[in-house]
Amino acid sequence: MLIARVVGSVVSTQKNGKLEGAKLLLAQPLDLDGQDRGPAVMAIDAVDAGVGDRVLLVLDGKAAMMALDRGLAGVDAAIVGIVDSVEIAG
Amino acid sequence: MLIARVVGSVVSTQKNGKLEGAKLLLAQPLDLDGQDRGPAVMAIDAVDAGVGDRVLLVLDGKAAMMALDRGLAGVDAAIVGIVDSVEIAG
Amino acid sequence: MLIARVVGSVVSTQKNGKLEGAKLLLAQPLDLDGQDRGPAVMAIDAVDAGVGDRVLLVLDGKAAMMALDRGLAGVDAAIVGIVDSVEIAG
Amino acid sequence: MLIARVVGSVVSTQKNGKLEGAKLLLAQPLDLDGQDRGPAVMAIDAVDAGVGDRVLLVLDGKAAMMALDRGLAGVDAAIVGIVDSVEIAG
Amino acid sequence: MLIARVVGSVVSTQKNGKLEGAKLLLAQPLDLDGQDRGPAVMAIDAVDAGVGDRVLLVLDGKAAMMALDRGLAGVDAAIVGIVDSVEIAG
Repeated sequence: MLIARVVGSVVSTQKNGKLEGAKLLLAQPLDLDGQDRGPAVMAIDAVDAGVGDRVLLVLDGKAAMMALDRGLAGVDAAIVGIVDSVEIAG
Repeated sequence: MLIARVVGSVVSTQKNGKLEGAKLLLAQPLDLDGQDRGPAVMAIDAVDAGVGDRVLLVLDGKAAMMALDRGLAGVDAAIVGIVDSVEIAG
Repeated sequence: MLIARVVGSVVSTQKNGKLEGAKLLLAQPLDLDGQDRGPAVMAIDAVDAGVGDRVLLVLDGKAAMMALDRGLAGVDAAIVGIVDSVEIAG
Repeated sequence: MLIARVVGSVVSTQKNGKLEGAKLLLAQPLDLDGQDRGPAVMAIDAVDAGVGDRVLLVLDGKAAMMALDRGLAGVDAAIVGIVDSVEIAG
Repeated sequence: MLIARVVGSVVSTQKNGKLEGAKLLLAQPLDLDGQDRGPAVMAIDAVDAGVGDRVLLVLDGKAAMMALDRGLAGVDAAIVGIVDSVEIAG
């Protein structure tokens, strides 16, 4: 799991039936200093996140699909939590 | 999931029986500015995409196989949607 | 699996119900010389680890979820052991 | 899935029983120009490929194992097709 | 799967119960010239390998766990064979 910031969204009308109703967000992974780290990915929202939120991003098909309530398929990334705070030692 | 552009296709006659009839497309991942990002991958089409389309690309075996209607195996990437629009915050 | 050091923790109140009660730690992968290697990741603690511990970090959804006692979902990384010692040949 | 070229083979007598009889090939991933891209990987042959063949390479445990007819385990990569031709747009 | 050399071992007393008795080895992936390639990883030994052996390394949770005889969990890498020889074409 990575800490990421929601930076946008994607609209897709013509999509696999198993993705109907899924909310597609763009999540930019962050490093421990809160800076962008690597490229953004698309993830299904499982926690009612919005643009600007700092979130928990899961990158694994099985894990992402199990986090979603519906019988979604074709999902390899999900947003599963909103980050309240990050505590770094030292 | 990544945003990608379909840039080509692959023909394979001698292939695993479980892939019979699968449409093999080459998908080039894009960054948020629409530029190429990393190398292209091969993916099974699950949404009737064509060359030039901007698509949702799933990179995970279980997720890709679940998105496909048939009992496919040996698939680790699928195209599961056509992108209508991408909205980037700020 | 990687050797990592626990460097912090994350608090998330609004999260997927299947993650309730999970302890979210930040783990920094290490190379064989004990130096940081690549970016830190977030992992669920399955072994009662704490900040400063050198740990066994699993990065795989199925493996991480199977290591956890509860019916967790949405997990792609887990801390499954505390490292006592590392022996390098030669 | 990636396009790769078979560049060699590996012999392993003392191996996990579930891999008995598996043909181990070395596959070098290629970019769209047919040039080497990244390091070679070892994959189980599921389509009777040989050295020099341009092939479809699957990199995912579940996908690779489902492509193989026998009850193989411990496999995270498989060669599932021979490439006849690649068509790149534009 | 990658070719790797066993370069060390890890001792962990306090670990997830499902890992009891597992032998933890450090495996350094090699390129086709036998040189180190990328960082070492920790893997469960499924084939009685020892330090100095050149081995088959599987990097996938499901594949690694299926290769192990016991009901292990929390494993994302396994050593599944000893390499006798590698033949590179040309």
